[in-house]
Amino acid sequence: MDLPLKIQRVKESMRKIPGVGEKTALRYALHLASRHAEELKAFGENLVNLASIDACQFCRSFSDREICNICANEERWDSGSLCVVESISDVIAIERSRQFRGTYFVLGGVLNPLLGVGPEELNVPRLRELIANRSSVRELVIAINPSLEGDATSSYLREILPPEIKVHRIGFGIPIGGALEYLDSMTISKAFENKTLMQEL
Amino acid sequence: MDLPLKIQRVKESMRKIPGVGEKTALRYALHLASRHAEELKAFGENLVNLASIDACQFCRSFSDREICNICANEERWDSGSLCVVESISDVIAIERSRQFRGTYFVLGGVLNPLLGVGPEELNVPRLRELIANRSSVRELVIAINPSLEGDATSSYLREILPPEIKVHRIGFGIPIGGALEYLDSMTISKAFENKTLMQEL
Repeated sequence: MDLPLKIQRVKESMRKIPGVGEKTALRYALHLASRHAEELKAFGENLVNLASIDACQFCRSFSDREICNICANEERWDSGSLCVVESISDVIAIERSRQFRGTYFVLGGVLNPLLGVGPEELNVPRLRELIANRSSVRELVIAINPSLEGDATSSYLREILPPEIKVHRIGFGIPIGGALEYLDSMTISKAFENKTLMQEL
Repeated sequence: MDLPLKIQRVKESMRKIPGVGEKTALRYALHLASRHAEELKAFGENLVNLASIDACQFCRSFSDREICNICANEERWDSGSLCVVESISDVIAIERSRQFRGTYFVLGGVLNPLLGVGPEELNVPRLRELIANRSSVRELVIAINPSLEGDATSSYLREILPPEIKVHRIGFGIPIGGALEYLDSMTISKAFENKTLMQEL
């Protein structure tokens, strides 16, 4: 059957979100078609407003204010630790773990020469600037996902940053709840590399 | 971390789509936040336009024209068969199977007295009207999903429609590719009820 143009258009818009396939996009569009006009108007306005979202001037994550609530907290800067991540969703995930009490820096992706993503396309110049201006930053924790590009980006950052900054990368290994028999050999190799000595009780 | 209000709003809008959970909605919102203003504007407009979508005057499925392309095809009416479905997505699924060559009628849901959905909330009066006006309709194929409410709705339709109309319900049983050991006992019972005689070759 010919799908009405209005539904097709919403479907195409939904389809562009990564992880939304043809069928899911259609399901979303059909559901939305049955919603009230005011709701659709509100949804549409929310999307348009998203275009004018600002980024924190320090960490580059999306923020309502010029300085996000994490960067505005001086205690976090005092920790001396800066965590470099690919995207704001990584910040959210790390904050949820409550393990890290320093500040963040959102790189905006990883280096990918094949796709034309160089240091200038990422926030690398801003990261160098931040480290130069904020003398409190003494160590970097690179929390970039492990992949060929992620590894290259991490090595690149180590190279360009001043040698007095300690640069760490987060640990790789078996995830909690993971089962050896289902994990890939790269993860298992990393887990063996990163073995830690158990203390005697 | 405090999520910017603009992201939270899009997340809430996405969250209202059935099947979109908290995490998925957030992922969609974060992705959209990184999109260009024009794209977001287009998406927003598409949503607003969806509010003014029309329904085919015969089958009640969404349509750009007053009469959808299926109902406009007289050959389909000539088949004499009308298929009653819950929603437009069922029409799409049935059309994909290329098994049915009649016309459709979208009921808009199933009877659910607990949620206050009676015949008037569905398109039941329009269905009666359609059958009264279109003398070519000689049989109904009810393709309502099997469930307590679906079964009740099917029985109700049989009851209110003129006795000269033959009313069928689509067959229930083991889906193709399904495995007996993983299917629920209701489906297996139905499959036994609906057993068919195999022809000798």
